[in-house]
Amino acid sequence: MLDQDIIQGRGFGNVVENGEVTGFQLQLRNPNYRGTAGSLLDGIKVVVDGERWDEHVPLWTLQGRTFTLDQLRASTDVRWQLDEPATITVPKPGGLSAGVHDIAATIYLRRPYFPPPIARSPFPVAAKGVIVPAAPGGRLRYGVSTYSYTGDIYTSMTLEDGMADIADMGATGIEILGEGNVPGYPEPGPAWIDAWHELLQRYGLTATNYGSWVDTTMWHDRDLTAEEAVAQIQLDLRLAKRLGFTSVRPKFGVTSWELDPHPIWAEAVERSLDLAADLDIVICPEIHSPTPIRHRVTQGYLEFIERTGSKHFKLLIDTGIFQTAPVDDGHEGVETEDGKRPAFLEPLAVPVTDLAGILPHVHFIQAKFFEIDDDLHDLHIPWHPIIETLQQGGWSGWLSSEYEGRREPYRGRDQVRRQHALLRSLDAAP
Amino acid sequence: MLDQDIIQGRGFGNVVENGEVTGFQLQLRNPNYRGTAGSLLDGIKVVVDGERWDEHVPLWTLQGRTFTLDQLRASTDVRWQLDEPATITVPKPGGLSAGVHDIAATIYLRRPYFPPPIARSPFPVAAKGVIVPAAPGGRLRYGVSTYSYTGDIYTSMTLEDGMADIADMGATGIEILGEGNVPGYPEPGPAWIDAWHELLQRYGLTATNYGSWVDTTMWHDRDLTAEEAVAQIQLDLRLAKRLGFTSVRPKFGVTSWELDPHPIWAEAVERSLDLAADLDIVICPEIHSPTPIRHRVTQGYLEFIERTGSKHFKLLIDTGIFQTAPVDDGHEGVETEDGKRPAFLEPLAVPVTDLAGILPHVHFIQAKFFEIDDDLHDLHIPWHPIIETLQQGGWSGWLSSEYEGRREPYRGRDQVRRQHALLRSLDAAP
Repeated sequence: MLDQDIIQGRGFGNVVENGEVTGFQLQLRNPNYRGTAGSLLDGIKVVVDGERWDEHVPLWTLQGRTFTLDQLRASTDVRWQLDEPATITVPKPGGLSAGVHDIAATIYLRRPYFPPPIARSPFPVAAKGVIVPAAPGGRLRYGVSTYSYTGDIYTSMTLEDGMADIADMGATGIEILGEGNVPGYPEPGPAWIDAWHELLQRYGLTATNYGSWVDTTMWHDRDLTAEEAVAQIQLDLRLAKRLGFTSVRPKFGVTSWELDPHPIWAEAVERSLDLAADLDIVICPEIHSPTPIRHRVTQGYLEFIERTGSKHFKLLIDTGIFQTAPVDDGHEGVETEDGKRPAFLEPLAVPVTDLAGILPHVHFIQAKFFEIDDDLHDLHIPWHPIIETLQQGGWSGWLSSEYEGRREPYRGRDQVRRQHALLRSLDAAP
Repeated sequence: MLDQDIIQGRGFGNVVENGEVTGFQLQLRNPNYRGTAGSLLDGIKVVVDGERWDEHVPLWTLQGRTFTLDQLRASTDVRWQLDEPATITVPKPGGLSAGVHDIAATIYLRRPYFPPPIARSPFPVAAKGVIVPAAPGGRLRYGVSTYSYTGDIYTSMTLEDGMADIADMGATGIEILGEGNVPGYPEPGPAWIDAWHELLQRYGLTATNYGSWVDTTMWHDRDLTAEEAVAQIQLDLRLAKRLGFTSVRPKFGVTSWELDPHPIWAEAVERSLDLAADLDIVICPEIHSPTPIRHRVTQGYLEFIERTGSKHFKLLIDTGIFQTAPVDDGHEGVETEDGKRPAFLEPLAVPVTDLAGILPHVHFIQAKFFEIDDDLHDLHIPWHPIIETLQQGGWSGWLSSEYEGRREPYRGRDQVRRQHALLRSLDAAP
């Protein structure tokens, strides 16, 4: 699907030719109600951060071919279809800086069925766009969880659009929710599984972590048994393996405000360790606010690692535990009394130094965040010390974007680009 | 694709059992970020226009099976997937009246991974929904143009979604824009054509009118020749035939503020009449504001009919010519000076009595409109005399919705339902 905005979120980036940055590109959907012959296009003015390019300057790429405005006006066999974006290339030696830019443009179309004096129609458009720098190529690997696209996915984007977004920003990992993104879960058809692997290949993505659940209150009148929990975990381990994932996060039902997992967790996981080893999948429970690192829950997982000696059970850290400022606008399904924030949503502000001590046991990081502003400043999560701690600890693994802010359409997609621009800039800094 | 709103536009309607209206239904997308086992659903409260139904009353239909709340809680093999709507059935003898209703609901889900006191999560949702009565079954036939979905189509809906919307409101005709909705125009692949015919059959739709263009300023430095215009018309006639359409509206470039068609129109059409007869397709130029019925342009078309004696050239009326109040918010690509409305956008207010005289020559009606309010009052188009004139004239043919108001997401889809409720109510009135 295309974005509702004429200026698309995908496709905004610098252009490299022979190793030099020569300009930038953006993608547009057709602003008119019909597709149009290329010869009826009549130029585009572009303004980025106040810098202007006249309407005859940008190049147009349509249906895989690139044209100057004069070439386009003379063309006979190229169209701007409603369901295909145009790529606009603007010359600018050195390109645009990493981060958020103000883009404005006026697209001109000739519409012969309009009275001649107004047949050349201007379509003014504007948006913010995010230039995401390449990943620095160190030990940190960059991915995205489809959770970031909650509300958008299946309404304004397909799963493939999510994969295209991830690839477009130069990320290489995709994390999914098994019970969210697998049609026909728990038994997707073989055609869907084949298509999934084809899409991974097409977009150059690695399947990273697979989110699963062990719903201990699956039935309203009794708790799940350990036997049932084992069956659930093993079902997801097998499905994750078929889809190419290398870790599974089982989210157990909890019994307290501090997210103590239901006591069946240990037996259910222990009975699944041999299968995890056979499949070479790491089972990683999630350390999630309001559970800090120095806490009996995290400690319980570490003791389990020590006791079993398993290499297939490690921790997953949700960076929401490092949150330093409150968020009051991103929690559907949570009722507040008198508009007061529930205690369990207070910023937990775990000291980042606590992370250093457990790094050898951390398999995966969900880079939870809520809002990054136009200056690439995260309002809630202290990324600088987090990245520094990961670098100093020599940690290798995935940072997987997990946007959890307001679910306005397209906001998650834009925010994830901002997060990648921010994290990679910190990661690349000397 | 599903609607962004949890309460879906499609699927809101009365339920008929054994010839009696026993209640109504609505469709919801899952409000949570994951798909969920049916047993974790914990009821839904529904309020329509102030009338309330408790959370244990509505029935749930998931994956083709219908459950009471108790059955759902005990279920083991049904899910509410993120990409599948749930249908909620509410008992109400006699059902809901035709028109716009205020719908509110609270969906309850048990989320075992939340602290137990708040694990039963309420998701409050609200929307307006439109009950569309069945078409009266007289001479008027009800269809929709995909033009109504401009801006939504290819962003939040596929062409198939458009067809599903049309079928859901009990309409049976679909009008498309050739240069808008045919991927790969002018040469769609055979697979797409097969899929198109399958979709027509699946949704019980008749292909009605195919919008085409003859772009007389296709090139910026010379006019289109008659020869080129013939080629364009014949290309579209043949493609329309392959897609099952029975009329083609060629939109010629114009030479004046009053939309005088470029003079090549007559030769280009006349040279295509034999082909139109062979294909049994009616070519119908569009009478569109600011061109009234009593005008040299319309007169020229009538003279053409008389002169050629062709049964394959008739008129298409755009009901915008009857507009009685101005619209200032629905015209992308039109610049205003000092915020003043251009003269050609003034309401034309053609007397509806003028329609009566030309009815025998009218093949198709594009039911252009801009806004219908919550009381099914059209703010701009006088539907009562229009429908009356069509009935009194014994006119048989398609009324094809052409929404042209503001392009806010989903607005066209909602407005088209309102228009069908309004037109059918007028058509059914004694």
